[in-house]
Amino acid sequence: MTYQFSNRMSSLQPSLVREILKATSDPEVIPFAAGNPAPDAFPVDDVRRITAEILRDRPIDALQYSITEGYPPLREALKRMVADRYGVPMEGNDLIILSGAQQGADLATKAFVNEGDTVLCEDPSFIGCLNCFRSYNCNLVGVEMEADGLNLEKLERAMAEQPNVKLLYVIPNFQNPTGITTSLHKRREILRLAQKYDVMVFEDNPYGDLRFAGEPLPAIKSFDTDGHVLYVGSFSKILAPGIRVAFVAAPPAVIAKMTVGKQCADVHTNILAQMICERWLATADLGAHFARLQEIYRRKCALMLDCIDREFSPRVAHTTPEGGLFLWCTLPEGADMMDFCNRAVAEKVAVVPGIAFLARETDPCRSFRMNFSTPTDEAIVEGCKRLGRLTHALYD
Amino acid sequence: MTYQFSNRMSSLQPSLVREILKATSDPEVIPFAAGNPAPDAFPVDDVRRITAEILRDRPIDALQYSITEGYPPLREALKRMVADRYGVPMEGNDLIILSGAQQGADLATKAFVNEGDTVLCEDPSFIGCLNCFRSYNCNLVGVEMEADGLNLEKLERAMAEQPNVKLLYVIPNFQNPTGITTSLHKRREILRLAQKYDVMVFEDNPYGDLRFAGEPLPAIKSFDTDGHVLYVGSFSKILAPGIRVAFVAAPPAVIAKMTVGKQCADVHTNILAQMICERWLATADLGAHFARLQEIYRRKCALMLDCIDREFSPRVAHTTPEGGLFLWCTLPEGADMMDFCNRAVAEKVAVVPGIAFLARETDPCRSFRMNFSTPTDEAIVEGCKRLGRLTHALYD
Repeated sequence: MTYQFSNRMSSLQPSLVREILKATSDPEVIPFAAGNPAPDAFPVDDVRRITAEILRDRPIDALQYSITEGYPPLREALKRMVADRYGVPMEGNDLIILSGAQQGADLATKAFVNEGDTVLCEDPSFIGCLNCFRSYNCNLVGVEMEADGLNLEKLERAMAEQPNVKLLYVIPNFQNPTGITTSLHKRREILRLAQKYDVMVFEDNPYGDLRFAGEPLPAIKSFDTDGHVLYVGSFSKILAPGIRVAFVAAPPAVIAKMTVGKQCADVHTNILAQMICERWLATADLGAHFARLQEIYRRKCALMLDCIDREFSPRVAHTTPEGGLFLWCTLPEGADMMDFCNRAVAEKVAVVPGIAFLARETDPCRSFRMNFSTPTDEAIVEGCKRLGRLTHALYD
Repeated sequence: MTYQFSNRMSSLQPSLVREILKATSDPEVIPFAAGNPAPDAFPVDDVRRITAEILRDRPIDALQYSITEGYPPLREALKRMVADRYGVPMEGNDLIILSGAQQGADLATKAFVNEGDTVLCEDPSFIGCLNCFRSYNCNLVGVEMEADGLNLEKLERAMAEQPNVKLLYVIPNFQNPTGITTSLHKRREILRLAQKYDVMVFEDNPYGDLRFAGEPLPAIKSFDTDGHVLYVGSFSKILAPGIRVAFVAAPPAVIAKMTVGKQCADVHTNILAQMICERWLATADLGAHFARLQEIYRRKCALMLDCIDREFSPRVAHTTPEGGLFLWCTLPEGADMMDFCNRAVAEKVAVVPGIAFLARETDPCRSFRMNFSTPTDEAIVEGCKRLGRLTHALYD
């Protein structure tokens, strides 16, 4: 049989990053292309203890069907947490538990975006969500990123001129792939423009608790007085990504529509995983845990930056993130970035070509993403040496 | 802000069944409306032992990101299982792990169905999947169910006359909501018609291992020589629904497209849950476990049928399932089914009004669904007494 796939899916290709990750699953390749939390960041002992307690005391609750909105004690704990920790007031908002933040993008797009409607994103941005937007056959439009976040003039122009702008996707803290943090001024302006043009902001904050430098900034959602922001948080980077638990805080009408969507998508999120998250929030020393994570990533990021500054040609630029897992290198003018990435793989170092993160993968791009959370310290040192030799050979 | 939701989602309402379940979460209400496996059907000791072993021996693998297609050892085990147990040959097919069978419906619809295309279903059918199809703004068309499965003449007419028929959704074993099993003859005919009209069959088999009477019948997929069938199996009814693990076996081109869809939907299924399923298949005595499940459901179904035959007015008809969790009662001509269901709730017995399962909820319907897996034996006896009194008062 020859399959006739839907319009929305017929042109969609597998995520370039995930294909690269598969191609470089060779353990000899240094994994600067990954996006995994550091293995020593997982609270393994807590998870062991909590899971045993749940399966000892409440096995049926942990195995039986549950409700779509999520495990009620976890929802309540998260409502308190987003209010206390991120300044997101829960009056006028509700909260749903999701099977990872990616599901937030999926359900928000499904709820708001008709085929042909516009979704705006930072350019570059997280490929997983960009592919999700594409899978709804939307008009995906990237807006230029600057060192402190979106170019506001270009953002306003896109909101004014693109057809039926429904969503703006932003990662204000230590953005994937660039590591850039959106300034306080731009956070306020993004909300102002969203209000002016009646666009929903999808504020994705997977890395917010991984700040290892600078001062915390309030979430865009914390200024949201009239329901223009969906705030998405996740356990992937603070507890563990494999258990797939995240949440969205948004106005009740939006949460209700996403709940209907989730009934259709996967009924509910793994309930054992939700119970683990709830017990973890209730019993772990979160302050100490976050401090430990920040220390791990601070050290690994500083090591990578040191190595880059020592080994790379000075003609290669890089960002200096204040948190998160990624930094972004840009080759000198005239450089062939894809050629560089292929040469890097030949040297057994995997980085992600920047085009993977563009709204239009055919746009020019001289940048690539480097991840400092997954590789060991030794791999960071050795990988930067190999990349550095390439940069000197090619660009000095 | 007034939200302008997408066309596909603006008219979709929460599942009637889930709303009824919420309304009847009152523990005093006898839960014939549920669809939960019996709590004593869960292999709690196995899950405790396996989970502790995984978190002791391979905690990082169980918590880290994993690949979209699913945990490779589980995929291999399931490929062997569908071949050996259900006669589904894996040559020419591939297999993906999903976050519950509902996700199979979601990804298949997303991959095949444009807005306005037709999805055919058994009428009545499982509301969760019907709502999923609706959430893609398709033309959902129900085909009459008979005591041995779909009316084939009406099925062929629908395939010939409806616009762009892309999917046919069937539950051949102990269908939800009716408990009906599709005959061998009709299984072959359904495939023949799917081939003739080039329609994909979505064969949902959550209850196949819960056969407690009659002879097992081969899956439609077992006859599929040219890739017209997606076969969906699930751990929800044989291990536990709360962990949300299921799978689809289908031709590689279809699995590849669903994999791209799953990357966009939730990246991958909870990996700890996948590892639990893999270890359970490898180490549990499945034959003994399935025999125990079948015995539980055989006994509970027989008890409910006995009570119905003893207590209900003889003017109320019912199906006699050979497996699964549900049976289907039909009130006499002229009866007001919604009125009956409301009176039942007033008597603190919840059943599901049959209209919830219709492709068009406005079609006439005198039936309701009863579940025998969730209520205790005492609740089955008492609930049938109360319903029986109602039937005598209303219809004798």
